[in-house]
Amino acid sequence: MACEFNKKIYPIHPSDETVQDIPAYKSALDLPETPDLAVIVLPTNLVIKCVEECGKKGIKHAIIVSAGFKEVGEDGINLEKELSATAAKYNIRFLGPNCIGVANSHHKLNTTFMQYEGKPGFIGMASQSGSFITQMFEYLNKFGLSFSSGFSVGNEANVDIVDCLKHLGACPETKVIALYIEAIRRGREFIETARSIIPHKPIVAYYVGGSEAGRKAGFSHTGALSGSDRLYDGVFKQSGVIRAYSIEELYDYCQVLGSCPEAGGNNVIIQTHSGGPGAVAADACDRAGLALSKLSDDTRNKLTQFVPDTGSLNNPIDITYSKNPLNFFFDIPAILLEDKNTNGILIYFIMPEQSIDRTLEMLNVSEADRDEQAAELMNGIAANILNIMKKANKPIVGFSFQTEDNRFINSLQESGVPVLRSPTRAAKALGALVQYSRHRKFTNSVRKTI
Amino acid sequence: MACEFNKKIYPIHPSDETVQDIPAYKSALDLPETPDLAVIVLPTNLVIKCVEECGKKGIKHAIIVSAGFKEVGEDGINLEKELSATAAKYNIRFLGPNCIGVANSHHKLNTTFMQYEGKPGFIGMASQSGSFITQMFEYLNKFGLSFSSGFSVGNEANVDIVDCLKHLGACPETKVIALYIEAIRRGREFIETARSIIPHKPIVAYYVGGSEAGRKAGFSHTGALSGSDRLYDGVFKQSGVIRAYSIEELYDYCQVLGSCPEAGGNNVIIQTHSGGPGAVAADACDRAGLALSKLSDDTRNKLTQFVPDTGSLNNPIDITYSKNPLNFFFDIPAILLEDKNTNGILIYFIMPEQSIDRTLEMLNVSEADRDEQAAELMNGIAANILNIMKKANKPIVGFSFQTEDNRFINSLQESGVPVLRSPTRAAKALGALVQYSRHRKFTNSVRKTI
Repeated sequence: MACEFNKKIYPIHPSDETVQDIPAYKSALDLPETPDLAVIVLPTNLVIKCVEECGKKGIKHAIIVSAGFKEVGEDGINLEKELSATAAKYNIRFLGPNCIGVANSHHKLNTTFMQYEGKPGFIGMASQSGSFITQMFEYLNKFGLSFSSGFSVGNEANVDIVDCLKHLGACPETKVIALYIEAIRRGREFIETARSIIPHKPIVAYYVGGSEAGRKAGFSHTGALSGSDRLYDGVFKQSGVIRAYSIEELYDYCQVLGSCPEAGGNNVIIQTHSGGPGAVAADACDRAGLALSKLSDDTRNKLTQFVPDTGSLNNPIDITYSKNPLNFFFDIPAILLEDKNTNGILIYFIMPEQSIDRTLEMLNVSEADRDEQAAELMNGIAANILNIMKKANKPIVGFSFQTEDNRFINSLQESGVPVLRSPTRAAKALGALVQYSRHRKFTNSVRKTI
Repeated sequence: MACEFNKKIYPIHPSDETVQDIPAYKSALDLPETPDLAVIVLPTNLVIKCVEECGKKGIKHAIIVSAGFKEVGEDGINLEKELSATAAKYNIRFLGPNCIGVANSHHKLNTTFMQYEGKPGFIGMASQSGSFITQMFEYLNKFGLSFSSGFSVGNEANVDIVDCLKHLGACPETKVIALYIEAIRRGREFIETARSIIPHKPIVAYYVGGSEAGRKAGFSHTGALSGSDRLYDGVFKQSGVIRAYSIEELYDYCQVLGSCPEAGGNNVIIQTHSGGPGAVAADACDRAGLALSKLSDDTRNKLTQFVPDTGSLNNPIDITYSKNPLNFFFDIPAILLEDKNTNGILIYFIMPEQSIDRTLEMLNVSEADRDEQAAELMNGIAANILNIMKKANKPIVGFSFQTEDNRFINSLQESGVPVLRSPTRAAKALGALVQYSRHRKFTNSVRKTI
């Protein structure tokens, strides 16, 4: 819906002449050409006949949104077998049934019932819950993120989560893969596929079936039989998949893994101008397996001119205040990232509207030009942070309690600088990046030895 | 700033005739009457002389914002001793130095440098970081929350975090107390005070000094010497303080503890219309020490008419869809809360703008009246949820991936229904409420026995 899909669409309807003003056909058999994909949203009892007609027409791919199959019990199980047999007869690969389909921000294809107007994104998602596709459109948008491709796999009668993983591994628009898992049906293939992808692309998984209650809920939801938490932990560790423990962690990790260069190690600097958020970040880094690096003398010397007496050159670097607030976003992070003992930095981003105005005043911007100049200033800062990160080839992860409705946070996010919603979330996400980088380094070194 | 403080203010300035258009005095000694409180924001070297003058004038309370004392080392330590001695001479109790003061939403008093326009709130905060007062104004506002009173304790030369705790325990506008702790200097008094408050008011604490990095950062920030994580864990457990592990957890817990009746036990129901968020909530409940209750036959019978065949009457209760969407917000939660096996419910709240419009269309509301009617509908739902909670005297905790910019979430929050930002956060916060309720029940039963 509303994704500006600009390829040909042929509605099929038993009686209506048009569907949303597009001329409709009575059956797939009547179509003037063979489409690449059929999207089937019909009452359960009509689905198999429709697949049969698609097959006869030569259609090779389908998304079956309709429910009422395996998930409803015995009758449904038989119906699903029949559906699979019909598809097999014509070599049709299909997603579903009982799914909401696909949302692809690059091909502007959205078969779900929710509007999706996000910009093209880099998170490739395969999900055993359709909600974590559709209900995340808006959520991700608030972080400046979106799906490259989001697959709702439904009952996995034909295409399953492993197939989607394979596809996303090869998809050039996907920089990081997110998985929502209630149960993996093909364990060995999952591990093999994940292992083949990890050397060039990170995978983050949230597994919900590890607790007793989660297991039961998953079974009731999609009829999936999940395994113990420990079993899945083993599967993820063996294959190098990063494990998240909540939906917000899943996407936080994707944001950082998809936006930042890899980390050469776990030594980080926290840059702040507020003691409390700095202390919280330090505590969170410790708990996330990150170490606070000891600044080299060279770095300390270079910093002196930018940090007043009230500030601290220990780590966290607490600037307290700057005569020129732009130092905080230009000179200081550049110096910190150059530090030889340091693999990445966490920066506290806060710019209340009143500070934005004050900065502009300081730059002698007239009141009439404020709005335009503010946008330019914010974009300039964001572009510079990105540039520093690229040049040093080390990760910068921002954190803030402010959100996308603040102009500054919005600019950073839109430019591609990851800004997490708290120091704790930022530290965990940077921890995930370090974990991935380590795993990749290790497997690559093993490959070379063999 | 901008808190509509409507009592008398006397600016004092050595040379200016007015401060922000209010006539200024040269010294406290020149004031026409004795104020209740002095707020001192001066260069360090002028502070003690000013306190002396305040003392002579008979002022008994002060907030000393100025920094440059104990936190800067030896010279500062001596200066702080002199400051304390001067205040003692005149029996002045003071907050600070090196703090940002107080923000009180009921007295409309805000001595900090950040604007605060939140409505009167119920979270009483004592913080060893000023940032977690000022930088939380906007954050809390997004959840429909604010501080009853927020204290930044700074160097704690006179009034310390234990004093603030005592005050907040007695403050009638404070329903729940939040603490940000880098180190407690008076351990025994802390435990005694907390113990005396817990029977009538919950306390949530976030302690940052438990990790090595957090400890060092705290020391650098306020010169506080913190103790091991285990020590503080013991202190909190002994006194019945709920421990949070991040700033967002701290305020999440406060939101639920301040908005909901206590929980008689840990048996909860999850109400959803999306399988994935339901499964995540189930998993999160399990990890947060909550059990999913088994619905009584009576409850199941009453529910049947509202849940279609596609739905599930297991727990999570997955409605999938309702012919009348209002059932989800009126009939169903009322039935669930009446269930005798159940102590509270978690509800998934989502109403995208398109569903709001659809619901209004179904209610035959003309397009011209949509906006007004939407607001009325949302407020009606919110009022009803609150009402159900009050009547059953059991907690309802909402969760959503949508935020305050959605009309529905905004209405719920503004009415006082807690809506957490994810199933995981909601389950944890309800877990905190259960923990507090249990502790209170236990200590009260011990009291009765003695």
